[in-house]
Amino acid sequence: MKVDGKYFRSIWLEPDGWSVGAIDQRKLPHQFVVARLTSCDAAADAIRSMLVRGAPLIGATAAYGVALAMRADSSDAALDAACKALLATRPTAINLKWALDDMRATLGHLPASGRAEAAYTRAGEIADDDVAINQAIGQHGLALIEVLAATRKPGERVNILTHCNAGWLATVDWGTATAPIYLARDRGLAIHVWVDETRPRNQGASLTAWELGHHGVPHTIIPDNTGGYLMQHGMVDLVIVGTDRVAANGDVCNKIGTYLKALAAHDNGVPFYVALPSPTIDFSVDDGTQIPIEQRAADEVTTMTGRTADGRIESVRIVPDGSPVANYGFDVTPARLVTGLITERGLFKADRAALAAAFPERTAAAAE
Amino acid sequence: MKVDGKYFRSIWLEPDGWSVGAIDQRKLPHQFVVARLTSCDAAADAIRSMLVRGAPLIGATAAYGVALAMRADSSDAALDAACKALLATRPTAINLKWALDDMRATLGHLPASGRAEAAYTRAGEIADDDVAINQAIGQHGLALIEVLAATRKPGERVNILTHCNAGWLATVDWGTATAPIYLARDRGLAIHVWVDETRPRNQGASLTAWELGHHGVPHTIIPDNTGGYLMQHGMVDLVIVGTDRVAANGDVCNKIGTYLKALAAHDNGVPFYVALPSPTIDFSVDDGTQIPIEQRAADEVTTMTGRTADGRIESVRIVPDGSPVANYGFDVTPARLVTGLITERGLFKADRAALAAAFPERTAAAAE
Repeated sequence: MKVDGKYFRSIWLEPDGWSVGAIDQRKLPHQFVVARLTSCDAAADAIRSMLVRGAPLIGATAAYGVALAMRADSSDAALDAACKALLATRPTAINLKWALDDMRATLGHLPASGRAEAAYTRAGEIADDDVAINQAIGQHGLALIEVLAATRKPGERVNILTHCNAGWLATVDWGTATAPIYLARDRGLAIHVWVDETRPRNQGASLTAWELGHHGVPHTIIPDNTGGYLMQHGMVDLVIVGTDRVAANGDVCNKIGTYLKALAAHDNGVPFYVALPSPTIDFSVDDGTQIPIEQRAADEVTTMTGRTADGRIESVRIVPDGSPVANYGFDVTPARLVTGLITERGLFKADRAALAAAFPERTAAAAE
Repeated sequence: MKVDGKYFRSIWLEPDGWSVGAIDQRKLPHQFVVARLTSCDAAADAIRSMLVRGAPLIGATAAYGVALAMRADSSDAALDAACKALLATRPTAINLKWALDDMRATLGHLPASGRAEAAYTRAGEIADDDVAINQAIGQHGLALIEVLAATRKPGERVNILTHCNAGWLATVDWGTATAPIYLARDRGLAIHVWVDETRPRNQGASLTAWELGHHGVPHTIIPDNTGGYLMQHGMVDLVIVGTDRVAANGDVCNKIGTYLKALAAHDNGVPFYVALPSPTIDFSVDDGTQIPIEQRAADEVTTMTGRTADGRIESVRIVPDGSPVANYGFDVTPARLVTGLITERGLFKADRAALAAAFPERTAAAAE
């Protein structure tokens, strides 16, 4: 989507034909910096350090990481080592495993001499596929917004709440939760987005607000504590969030705090939708209790980074010395609180039977 | 309670017999600074700027503010002006109005010459009464913790979650939500407190964690998004929060985000208690929808203040330029989500009939 009026993706092959460009998302919203990844280690570091983040973008970055590895050494041992190193970077994101399995299946049977070129081709396809999938998610989600927009009085907006960043920065382009929003905006519908700041890493305030602003979508940043109040007062028409993994029964693993918003939506009759590419559904996981939850570093909670009034970037400690902190990365929203799943194939109920019927080939594969 | 091993209150009469000392809570947790208030304007500024905060402490500060006003000018006009100026500082806290009504009733019928001394005496009584009330709240809440502690295996702790700061810094001493916690700790019960950081002002991370740490209570700071996950995983035995105002039907107005924790507690069968001095129940307000919700300044959301690694205090902007923010200060937790109200008179159900039966003199007064 647009940055300062120019279209960008979050990851791309550089004009040199082998190195990989990516937006350094740790610097946003204060600095727009492009990183150049030139090795598999650099790609793994980019994922681990959250230079790139978001399940689909992590998958695409891992695919390019394998391509960078194959360019240096296309042996079986190097392929194994690359996949292993990349898989270890973030345990929760299913797209990471999915992309690496895909790369291994594509490359494994090829002679070593053909692997580098095939790896770049496949990584490019994975990136393009993500863009096409998100556009399809956008179309299906747009229909929900259009229904609400049709009931508005003149001058009234459709108010959408989102948590964390399931925007184009979390994918290759368009985003998942934001794809319907960008399409609605491009169609001229009157919308407004409440953006949860999403502590502790503030992906909402730093990334979602930044990308919505650059693409011209009206929005307001709110503390994570605020959404319940807004829903009690009729100020939210629709919640759309992304997800890192959906279990076979429709339980949704997403950024910590999503569950609290789903409870508030349920309590106030606000529709709660989850937008996702269908590979995010993990039919090998029976329900959400089986999804491992990553614990992240304490300094994400203890320290905030931002820009001083005179333009310096500073990190400041915001808790007392000696107070321990806990930093669970994700929570699981039970399927009973989810109105529907917006996928590239359409809208589905978040329940086992509906998902099995919609993706028969996937459930058969998971049962094997 | 203790600061660096020495007992403090949050507000006190200085040894000079007229000026008022108070802990500057805006500087915590990084600096322990005592402010000296020497005029009614200074007291009003202290409330408005949140040098002091917390409903009971706001009430005590307002009472001392009237005393400072009377010392300068004890005329009827000055009494009116002082009460008016102090009342305008924070619209949501019922204790503010209650303390000012008390001071006006105490002073109004006295000759001007006797007002200053009477005002200081009454302000001191209001402060002492708050301490006694909180100790009584502590005793009633302690009983709940003792019941849970009795069911623990050796080495297991009772896990209590709290939101914002209803600690001794929010009162004159002991706190409301923390009074049972401090008593449990002083009795040697094995407890641990999950402290919501409480964006946007971070009173949990800055104040509750600071005071628990100084008094030796085991605790862990968590982002506001985390409590739902902890409750889903059996890691919270009890929620205790404070309140700024309770309606006649038991609806609880408290710091924004409280409602989300109450929803999570309800969804996971975790008891959700609200600790309060009984004057916080406003029988003139029929239900929570009638409580005005204060909107606060945008910079509380856009900017964070903390300490750099080399010890400087810096404020940093954490949102993109041009992104609007919203900052609602409070939300209302419906009575149906509240397990009970812990008051100085004992434990009550959060419903109209129970509260009317418990406080017949108050409901009669409200009906007049």
